Amino acid sequence: MRIARFSIDGNVAFGAVEGEGPDGLVLDIIKGIPFADFELSGTKVPLSKVRLLPPVLPNKVVAFGRNYADHAAELGHEAPERPFAFFKPATSVIGSGDAIVYPSFSKELHHEAELAVVIGRMCREVPRERVKDVILGYTCANDVTARDVQRQEKQWARAKGFDTSCPLGPWVETDLDPSDLAIQCTVNGEQRQLGRTSEMTHSIEELIVNISEAMTLLPGDVILTGTPAGVGPLSVGDEVAVTIQGIGTLTNKVIKRG
Amino acid sequence: MRIARFSIDGNVAFGAVEGEGPDGLVLDIIKGIPFADFELSGTKVPLSKVRLLPPVLPNKVVAFGRNYADHAAELGHEAPERPFAFFKPATSVIGSGDAIVYPSFSKELHHEAELAVVIGRMCREVPRERVKDVILGYTCANDVTARDVQRQEKQWARAKGFDTSCPLGPWVETDLDPSDLAIQCTVNGEQRQLGRTSEMTHSIEELIVNISEAMTLLPGDVILTGTPAGVGPLSVGDEVAVTIQGIGTLTNKVIKRG
Repeated sequence: MRIARFSIDGNVAFGAVEGEGPDGLVLDIIKGIPFADFELSGTKVPLSKVRLLPPVLPNKVVAFGRNYADHAAELGHEAPERPFAFFKPATSVIGSGDAIVYPSFSKELHHEAELAVVIGRMCREVPRERVKDVILGYTCANDVTARDVQRQEKQWARAKGFDTSCPLGPWVETDLDPSDLAIQCTVNGEQRQLGRTSEMTHSIEELIVNISEAMTLLPGDVILTGTPAGVGPLSVGDEVAVTIQGIGTLTNKVIKRG
Repeated sequence: MRIARFSIDGNVAFGAVEGEGPDGLVLDIIKGIPFADFELSGTKVPLSKVRLLPPVLPNKVVAFGRNYADHAAELGHEAPERPFAFFKPATSVIGSGDAIVYPSFSKELHHEAELAVVIGRMCREVPRERVKDVILGYTCANDVTARDVQRQEKQWARAKGFDTSCPLGPWVETDLDPSDLAIQCTVNGEQRQLGRTSEMTHSIEELIVNISEAMTLLPGDVILTGTPAGVGPLSVGDEVAVTIQGIGTLTNKVIKRG
């Protein structure tokens, strides 16, 4: 099932995405929330009539660095022997169709297409064989990065945590084998990144074991699993799109701060 | 005013701390929340009858690294020319009297006593001269760190973000000049850290200008301003106390994970 979060006439709801094609998609409004047992209401609205919101409101976004060897290499690093993680704050999250606002303190904004794992239940110290049970589903993410600031500051709170630096969406796909999916990033329709999730250095299971050993994950928390090679600049006016096989496309335009 | 958050008989409330001495303190229960106009109810409960909670529930904790030159030096670093920040997640926050749980993945836990700034209103791009307006008050913090993990992992999500790694409290002092306060850390009553907030490399104004240039701060968000020299190990059974002049003492015991 594909679960979107959206607003219509000022109301916010979750809905199951049904139908085919850009014009044929409808949302069957969910009674309740997708983190517990829920029912479909049968009330349907065309996707074209709603505003998509970030598919979840994470308490925290945990992002793993350099988890594709070819991306680590393009920035002059080796893939790390053990995973390492940083946080993107809730205030950085936007949805598909929202604008990425070019930050005033950077002159080198980069896209990083990533598979995002959405946590479905509160958990800690998850054993490898139980990882599947704590996952609600998968969505597309763009770990937008002020590359110049990242080089200048030892920890990346500003470089990767600024407002609008975490586009997520368009929705959460709950029925998906994430182990070998094509992941692509285009800018103004031109391909910049192309990889497969099978190229991750550390698997989704390893990443969730690693982080949940240290901290409690909450429903709606998001794990970013690293980006393949091909990261590059974004300019004001660009339209950046992250497409993951079996999920969909997350699209955001870069605008100047007004 | 000193504002505490506490629970009594299962109810959670804010209260103004009044009276003197460990046995004479009472809480005047606040009607409403301290982030907007509020009144004191006049209903008073002895502090000894309540359980103190973390004084705020931050959406994010932004912590600045190496902001006292003598602490940077003791770890073999220079004080950074420009501030750099990392996040501690909401799941890491505990209050005074709560236990610090020694993490399973570390063998070298360290205390770091810090002055914490509590944000009082939603803000972004705060000019230096308006910083005072966005601050609700000040509390004590312990930026508990798995030092061995910090050395091994390039970004510090696990080393400084594990559950119970962010003790805050005992309460928020709203009437205080933070520019030159004694800040002390003791372990089992023995002094380990002693500094003054006047020794910060980057002032509170600079830190809030720096971070709010990148991201929106929300009411209840917390800024940690760095630790003076003297950081050192914590063991299971230790009682660690952070005392800041004009605020009070944050006390936590270190326990083994059960």
